[in-house]
This record gives sequence, C-alpha cells and structure tokens, in this order.
Amino acid sequence: MTTIRDVAKAAQVSVATVSRVLNNQGYVSAHSREKVERAIQELNYTPNAVARSLYKKKSKSIGFIIPDISNPFFPQLFRAVEKYLIDHEYTVLLFNSDDQLDRISNIMDSMRTEYVAGAIIVSDKIKEEHLAKLSIPVVAIDRVISEHVPSLTVNNYKNAREAIRYLVSQGCSNIAHVRGPKGVYNAEERFRGYRDEIAEQQLPSLVICGNYDLKTSLVATMELLDQHPEIDGIFAGNDIMAVGVIKALAKLGIQVPDQMKVIGFDGIEWGTTITPELTTMEQPIEQIGTKSGELLLNLIDGHVMDSHHYSFDAKLVVRDST
Amino acid sequence: MTTIRDVAKAAQVSVATVSRVLNNQGYVSAHSREKVERAIQELNYTPNAVARSLYKKKSKSIGFIIPDISNPFFPQLFRAVEKYLIDHEYTVLLFNSDDQLDRISNIMDSMRTEYVAGAIIVSDKIKEEHLAKLSIPVVAIDRVISEHVPSLTVNNYKNAREAIRYLVSQGCSNIAHVRGPKGVYNAEERFRGYRDEIAEQQLPSLVICGNYDLKTSLVATMELLDQHPEIDGIFAGNDIMAVGVIKALAKLGIQVPDQMKVIGFDGIEWGTTITPELTTMEQPIEQIGTKSGELLLNLIDGHVMDSHHYSFDAKLVVRDST
Repeated sequence: MTTIRDVAKAAQVSVATVSRVLNNQGYVSAHSREKVERAIQELNYTPNAVARSLYKKKSKSIGFIIPDISNPFFPQLFRAVEKYLIDHEYTVLLFNSDDQLDRISNIMDSMRTEYVAGAIIVSDKIKEEHLAKLSIPVVAIDRVISEHVPSLTVNNYKNAREAIRYLVSQGCSNIAHVRGPKGVYNAEERFRGYRDEIAEQQLPSLVICGNYDLKTSLVATMELLDQHPEIDGIFAGNDIMAVGVIKALAKLGIQVPDQMKVIGFDGIEWGTTITPELTTMEQPIEQIGTKSGELLLNLIDGHVMDSHHYSFDAKLVVRDST
Repeated sequence: MTTIRDVAKAAQVSVATVSRVLNNQGYVSAHSREKVERAIQELNYTPNAVARSLYKKKSKSIGFIIPDISNPFFPQLFRAVEKYLIDHEYTVLLFNSDDQLDRISNIMDSMRTEYVAGAIIVSDKIKEEHLAKLSIPVVAIDRVISEHVPSLTVNNYKNAREAIRYLVSQGCSNIAHVRGPKGVYNAEERFRGYRDEIAEQQLPSLVICGNYDLKTSLVATMELLDQHPEIDGIFAGNDIMAVGVIKALAKLGIQVPDQMKVIGFDGIEWGTTITPELTTMEQPIEQIGTKSGELLLNLIDGHVMDSHHYSFDAKLVVRDST
C-alpha cells in the first residue's frame, strides 16, 4: 500500500509538506504543491483517515454506545444512525457497554485512541464526568445524561398516559403495568405516566417489575394474574415484556383480546412475529436516529444548537392484542 | 490532549525518536530513551492507536462485515465475536453491507483507511478480488468465499438432512421446504440437504421460496397449503421463515403440532417468543463467533492454519412446534 512517506520521497519533500497539501493547511510553495500532487497521481495514493487524523486530531468516525445490540430495539436504531452518518462520509464504531462501568471506561479509552470525532450515547450510567475526559461533542438518545448534553427521546410520560387512555377507551377498568428496571430513564418516565393517568381515571393501580426482559415479564405476569384475576388490561413498559405477557396469557388459556387487552411500547419487529400481533406505542426510530446524526454533525461543525432536548411522539399502532 | 509532538518537544528529541521508543523498534540511544520516558511520565501521555498505527501499518481494530444487523441472527454472532476480540484488546468495526456491491466497495475503502488489522466477513457477494486490494487476513463465517479464505460454517447440508429425518420420525410423510434465497450459500446447502433426504426417504418433494423473510414465507405458505392440503410437516430454511410459517398456520386455523409439524434452522431468540415455541436446528453461534476471532488473530500473528474450513454441528432443539 502506498503511504504518505512514499509520496514524500517521490516528490522529494518532507512528510509534513505532503500533509499540509492533503489537509490544505499551512504554507506550501506552489512548486512543492505541484510536485506533491503529481506524486499522489503517479502513485495512485489515497490519503488515509489514520494519517489525516494524526494531524487534524479528529477522524471521520463516530462512536455509538448502546447497552446491547442483542436487545431488538437497537439494530433498527443503529441502521438509522449509520445510514445518516455514512451518507455524510463518517464511519460508525458500535460499542456495547452492557451499561457496566468497567466496559464504559474501556470504551472511553478506545474512542480516545481512535480519535472519534463525536459520540451518540444510549446509557443510564454514563455521566458528565465520563464525557469530560473525551472533550468531543456528544448527543444522548433514549436517555438524558444531563442538561448540558443534547438529548433526543420520545415523550415517554405523555405517550404512556395515552396508552392507558386507549385501554380505558377499549373498556378496560383494571389495568396493570409491567414496568422496566428501576433507575432506567425511560422505564421511570413510562411508569410515572401509568401512575398519573391511573390516578386521574380513578382506577386501581397494580405494578409489577418485568426488567425489560421477556422471561422476567412472563413469570411476573403469571404470578400477578394468579393473585388478581380481575385484571382486564396490561400496559407493558416495552414490547419485549409485552411479548412475555402474551406468552403468559397463552399458557394460562386467557384469550387476547377478548378477555385481556395488551399494549406495549417501542414498535419493534418482535411485536409482529407473534399471534395475536401486538398493539403498541411505536417510536419513530428512524427519525430519532437520523436527527441524532444530524445534531451531532452540526455540533462537530461548531454550530450552536437550537435546543438541548428534542422530543418525539410515539404513535399508537393498533393490532390484534386490543 | 497530550500528543506525541508534545512528548518530543519536552524531551528535546524528534517525533520519530519518540515513536521508536513507543514501538520499541529501531535504534535509540540510552540517553534519548531516558529523556523520552521521563517526558511521557511527566506529561502523563498515553500512546494512542492512531499514532501507533501510522508507524506499525496496522491498528488494533478488526472489521466485521455482515449483510444487516437487523437480521436477528447477527446481533448474537456480533456479541460473540466482539467479546473474544475485546478480551484480546481489539476494537471491532461493524459494517452492514446489505450485500450490495457499491456498499462493499465503500466498506473496503473504510477498512483500508482505518488500517484494520483483519476482517471477519459474512457475505455472498465479496469475492477474492475484493479482498486482494486489502492485503489483510480474512476469515469467512456462515458462507464460503473461496478455498483460499478460511471459513467457518455449520454442516448445513448434513444438519438439514437431520431435520427431515426428525420430521419423518415424528410421523410426517408430506414434508414441504420453505427455502432461502437462490445464490445464498447456506440456503443452497440446506435445500440440497432437504432434496437428498426426501429422495432417500422416497417422499414427495415440495419446495417454495421464502427469501429468508417472515412476510414472504407467510404468504408463500398460505398459497402452498391452499394447493397442497396433504402437507403434514414443514422444514423452514431458517427460523425467521419458520415464524412466518407458524403465523400462516395460525391464520388458517391449522393446529401445531397436531395437524402440522414445523422445524426451523439457526436457533435465534425469535423462536422462543412465539406460541408454540419453535423446534429448530440450533447453531452454536457463540462457539462460531469465538473461533472466528481466534483464527483471525492467529492469522494476524502469522501462524499457519491447521485447516481452511472449520465446520460445526447444529443441534436439534425440540420445542412445541413438533
């Protein structure tokens, strides 16, 4: 492979001169510039990102940190982010943090040594102090890091209230909530939405923890219905848990939607693989992914943001489970 | 951030000297080495991968090219590959090719400019000529690129025959096959396995194309059963299509497994989200991911391979669909 050194040698100039030509920065005489450009042509040299990043102190890559790509919410979000960034000639480096502090620390090191130009982050554990070490622009998705870090989320609270109102409109009067893990931003917001709407509707409140996980949700739902056979509607805090709810109902022989109505949140493909298909509050995943890429590139280019929080509405998608 | 230039300045030596110390390559006087090491300590300088890769001509990153992370087979494979490589201090760069030649060409450019040290590839379109430009070690998973490129796959042909024999052992005598797309390596192998085992069992052959896609499989299955009500068993070429088959059967009111037995291939989580849960030929995804990382790092380190093809056995996992 031709290197910047080969170009410098062929052009009889220093590597620093070739670099100045490539980056169009600093003084280069017309004569030297011409020699460098001729050498680049003759050697068919492609300036590479690694060499350029050494001089520019930023590469054309973006770090994208998520908890776990095996969670079926993330592949679709990743593809949307990636599409926008590739169209703008960036490479995306995907990091799975499992939201564990030691992994996060390693990821921060990798991003620093790879000179990523910016980062898009989905995490409940990453705080401002972790980001301070990076000194690169950061955008948060699906979670809020702090008021100083731009973030994009759906209106978890408002959309959760809408889900409850929809179940009520379908005749449900004993609505349980299978909530996501404590301390997870969107799980807390959706829980608050359930709690406040149930109070407003003067209905009994029944909350169990499903940990954003199919099996936990399945087991918890079976126990719940054993104790509370009066339940006629379930709002699951995400679609994965809603699939667990529907599996539990199948095991118990409870007919959906006749005896029980179920609504999820997120709009992942899993909801359409099952029978009956899942009614859900569908996030505009592509729009959020695209917008996060756009905001980050604006920040990298030094533009000022209009706002520090961008919110989107999840849309009620009615299928066969209600 | 402290750079190699700051270190060179503080130590009053050239950048090249600092580099020689960092990489422990070439001659450096004891006096210079001491000055560099003192400067590194004083400035708390971390040598970075970008700077090192410029000199070493290889970085500590690996490219992982797959068709599409939204296909639920890949997240689990990616996590297995990533785990092995992170444990060995590599960063993994994930690229979605959609198996389109223009994307592949861009990915090859990105991998070259990022100086990846090696690549793990799942693709039916990437040929030796694409790889020739990279001149880095490559390992193929789930597909075979050529006899010169090491590859890891399950025994698609043999394991497909086992799936058919299992359906026969469960009393099926009219077994249809929902096959994957033409020209895709593992789809062809699984189809061959079906065809040969059906011939050996002297059973009628019935093949439809499901394109490794839920909806295509669902529609094709409904048409098939309209014309061939005698079918009592279906072997789907992957689990995604098997989920489509089970949805079609639910729509038609055909009882699984009493009236129809269904078996898939791959062992993805989707198979356990549905009711009835899917019987399948489960690939050892983690083992394949780990082994591919191990082989690639051996190649990067210049070791000779024992073999050029590594095959694994998919395991029959019996659930409620048979």
